[in-house]
Amino acid sequence: MKRTRISPQVIRRLPRYLDQLDRLIADGAVRVSSAELGRQMKLTVSQIRQDFSCFGKFGQQGYGYNTRVLRAEIASILGMDRRHTAVLVGAGNLGRALLQNFGFAQYGFRMLAAFDVLPGLCGSSIAGVPVYHASELPAFLAENRIDAAVLAVPQQQAVQTAAQLAGLGVRAIWNFTNQDLHLSDPNVLVESIRFSDSLLALSYYMKQQAASDDRKLEEPH
Amino acid sequence: MKRTRISPQVIRRLPRYLDQLDRLIADGAVRVSSAELGRQMKLTVSQIRQDFSCFGKFGQQGYGYNTRVLRAEIASILGMDRRHTAVLVGAGNLGRALLQNFGFAQYGFRMLAAFDVLPGLCGSSIAGVPVYHASELPAFLAENRIDAAVLAVPQQQAVQTAAQLAGLGVRAIWNFTNQDLHLSDPNVLVESIRFSDSLLALSYYMKQQAASDDRKLEEPH
Repeated sequence: MKRTRISPQVIRRLPRYLDQLDRLIADGAVRVSSAELGRQMKLTVSQIRQDFSCFGKFGQQGYGYNTRVLRAEIASILGMDRRHTAVLVGAGNLGRALLQNFGFAQYGFRMLAAFDVLPGLCGSSIAGVPVYHASELPAFLAENRIDAAVLAVPQQQAVQTAAQLAGLGVRAIWNFTNQDLHLSDPNVLVESIRFSDSLLALSYYMKQQAASDDRKLEEPH
Repeated sequence: MKRTRISPQVIRRLPRYLDQLDRLIADGAVRVSSAELGRQMKLTVSQIRQDFSCFGKFGQQGYGYNTRVLRAEIASILGMDRRHTAVLVGAGNLGRALLQNFGFAQYGFRMLAAFDVLPGLCGSSIAGVPVYHASELPAFLAENRIDAAVLAVPQQQAVQTAAQLAGLGVRAIWNFTNQDLHLSDPNVLVESIRFSDSLLALSYYMKQQAASDDRKLEEPH
């Protein structure tokens, strides 16, 4: 199948399609048209066609898309069939919440171990994932092929720990520290979840909402 | 100051400018040019000028921007000076991590209370924020002006709890449940942090990285 380069914006929309297709498949839908999908996802038909055109044509005129085929294709594009291995670095509240409540497996990630500096945690396991002392990280990474590290250490330790991981050969970091990481090694992928960007966007829209409320109050009755 | 409507993309870039300006101010920089800012943030000068043009002109030709004035203006646009009040709903691992490690106050949010169903938590406090039983939420919201709720309940309870919050008059929800919320009330703002979108974006780039590695191996030596 011919594939052109997919823009970052499209990449970030693909998981939404995946969710909607999962719902359709769960409801027993065998096919879906661009028009239906657009209505369900509040997107225009041309937006959907444009998004899907990036990775080849597998909808049929007058038939729409086979939900399972489309779902499998999107999952494959996103690398969900790659069986990535990962470790968690930092098993505090946030790290524990991720292991316990975020379904890594459904996205193709297998969590092999967690690391923390707290002696009390080491030797325990969280949601079936063994927790080791941070000092064992180099040996563990030397012995196991690890595709990604989930970074959930305190913000002050973020830069140092990320550099250590890169030095140990980790090629992808999922960064939860709210600290920008500028690694010297350009071959290490960093994906950061910045809570503050999201809260400040909400704050902006709250301000607009309040201004709109004020305008309504000022209107003559 | 004249303000045009700011696009969602620009809104989400503004916190980055804020971070960089904080660093510059901490380093004692009184002014910064678009060219310098662009170099530091890996953005083009025209990108920066275009972003800032959305909210009025306060850079000076040949001088650049006063770092503190620009910082204050961006903070004001983002509503950080509004002194928003908020509650946390769901004080599990993730909720606790947010109270303990995410600096709500620096973004203008004052956390007044947390709510959970676990009797053991109620009556305690986390990072100075009192924890009450979820059954006390209606009374608390009736007695206190609350601008936003941080939703950190288990995914299965997300829809129901969000509907309850909207019914109790909460106008903004910061959603950490990884569950899409489609509230019937269009006046309730919902900002969702979708961990899975971020992990799948990383997964996509890891797949591209692996394909690139394979191509390098296949090249004749």
